[in-house]
Amino acid sequence: MNLSFWAATPQVQEQLKQLQRYLLKTIDLPDQPIHSKILKLLQSGGKFLRPGIFYLFAELGPNHDPDQLLAGASAQELLHLALKFHDQISDDKLKIPNPGHNQQRNAIYAGDYLFTRYFEEILKTAPSSSEFSDHLKAMQRILTGHLDQLQHRFDFTETVADYFAEINQRTGEAFQFSAEQGARIAGATPELVTLSAELGTTIGNAYQVSQDIQLAFNDQQNLLGSLQNGQYPLPLILSMNQPEIRQLLEKRQTLTLEDVQLIQNQLDQPTVEAQYKQLTDHIDDLLNQLPTGKAQTDLRQFVGRLL
Amino acid sequence: MNLSFWAATPQVQEQLKQLQRYLLKTIDLPDQPIHSKILKLLQSGGKFLRPGIFYLFAELGPNHDPDQLLAGASAQELLHLALKFHDQISDDKLKIPNPGHNQQRNAIYAGDYLFTRYFEEILKTAPSSSEFSDHLKAMQRILTGHLDQLQHRFDFTETVADYFAEINQRTGEAFQFSAEQGARIAGATPELVTLSAELGTTIGNAYQVSQDIQLAFNDQQNLLGSLQNGQYPLPLILSMNQPEIRQLLEKRQTLTLEDVQLIQNQLDQPTVEAQYKQLTDHIDDLLNQLPTGKAQTDLRQFVGRLL
Repeated sequence: MNLSFWAATPQVQEQLKQLQRYLLKTIDLPDQPIHSKILKLLQSGGKFLRPGIFYLFAELGPNHDPDQLLAGASAQELLHLALKFHDQISDDKLKIPNPGHNQQRNAIYAGDYLFTRYFEEILKTAPSSSEFSDHLKAMQRILTGHLDQLQHRFDFTETVADYFAEINQRTGEAFQFSAEQGARIAGATPELVTLSAELGTTIGNAYQVSQDIQLAFNDQQNLLGSLQNGQYPLPLILSMNQPEIRQLLEKRQTLTLEDVQLIQNQLDQPTVEAQYKQLTDHIDDLLNQLPTGKAQTDLRQFVGRLL
Repeated sequence: MNLSFWAATPQVQEQLKQLQRYLLKTIDLPDQPIHSKILKLLQSGGKFLRPGIFYLFAELGPNHDPDQLLAGASAQELLHLALKFHDQISDDKLKIPNPGHNQQRNAIYAGDYLFTRYFEEILKTAPSSSEFSDHLKAMQRILTGHLDQLQHRFDFTETVADYFAEINQRTGEAFQFSAEQGARIAGATPELVTLSAELGTTIGNAYQVSQDIQLAFNDQQNLLGSLQNGQYPLPLILSMNQPEIRQLLEKRQTLTLEDVQLIQNQLDQPTVEAQYKQLTDHIDDLLNQLPTGKAQTDLRQFVGRLL
């Protein structure tokens, strides 16, 4: 886990260290080969983005019951890890020789196990039946987002609206959930919970677009893989009306690094940047609506580091 | 769905018909290619064994709120379907050409979606927080059973105790859950709920053993596939100490139908039958402990048809 990302907010960094220890201790599959993989992912994985967002938005409320916050933050990371295990399989990143597919099998059940751990933590935040039901609906939207993404592979007619509908369900929904839960569990006002949800969605969408921009302009090797897979980042979707680009994409699995270079040369960078600026402007507007104080300062700094 | 299995208990058959209509109506993924697969599975699939067991054990209690029973029965089938989608992938039954694995991806997320539907139905049965937590623990045991099964592939040292520990977690736990939930939601006494749980486990284990016997003695083609996959049904585990059988199994993927015939000729049928009889005797004992009445009669008939 790369906690240096959180150095600017030492309190959140400390909370995430505690979270990591807690998760390492409570993943209970000791006799399974998949156990060490989960632990490794927890130790060396990402920046704990979702629980970090959760803790930042929790600063907007007055209640800081450590057990409730720990359960809420754990839930965020467990849902993320569960989906990550299932995404890995579908992204074909686990190259497994036939027959057996033992690694795939292990990863599927490990993801399922992490879903049950996720619900266990949600239970500890003592949700009402209707709140629990909201969790399930949110999870269904995230899954539908993943399914939609699959449908748009090699889809040369995908529009910008399709793209945003899909990332809104996938990344937007996940970030919204972290932000909203943080504010709600900390007992923030209903108005602040609603504002947190909108901020979460917008930060999630902007983050996804920034990742797409990074991929399209600065990561030729991964862009090649992505295009061969029929997955088009936003800058490609915005340039799909250019016949040269369209023609090159039609080469599908036979695309080469030279083709990728040709495509990159013709991408419409100004339009992409205008789209991205709309999102970051929206985030600034929403941040300005937060009450002045530590939470607002910390969130502003966070957005600055993330995007 | 093959409802003729339930013809002997017309009331349960009617409840299962209603359940099928309800599930067909409430699987909400209409724009996804996977949607029609789920519907097809619901229309043409198995005998609705788990919800059927649920309804049979519900006869042991006085409360027959149709909504609560429908939710409980749906939960049984949804959990079964979710695991079925994930098992299909791991069993490599969906033969998918590279690249993309779109079908696998779809099936994984469809399984995840069915888990969320499962939890939605569980919520409707208004469980206490500790009951909900029990559900999650049961699901974790079922998943651990699936993971254990993977570990025992090509395991020539697997003991009968290992085998029973594993099927107890996998099939036993699933049937236990259906039986216990039926009795509990119908408001049966705590003693009857406990007895139902034990009956469920034992029926589940006996069912698994009967399937294994069927496979080992009467289904050469599927036995070949199973042995090539390193999955050994109980009669094989009981005969693993015979050097000739052990030697043939070591051929692994290169096993032929002739080898399978040689193996079948040497299986120790009396020992298998003794093991099976222990289980069915245990079921008879437990059935005798039920109060005399319709529930007992229906369950006895059901066990007779199933095993």
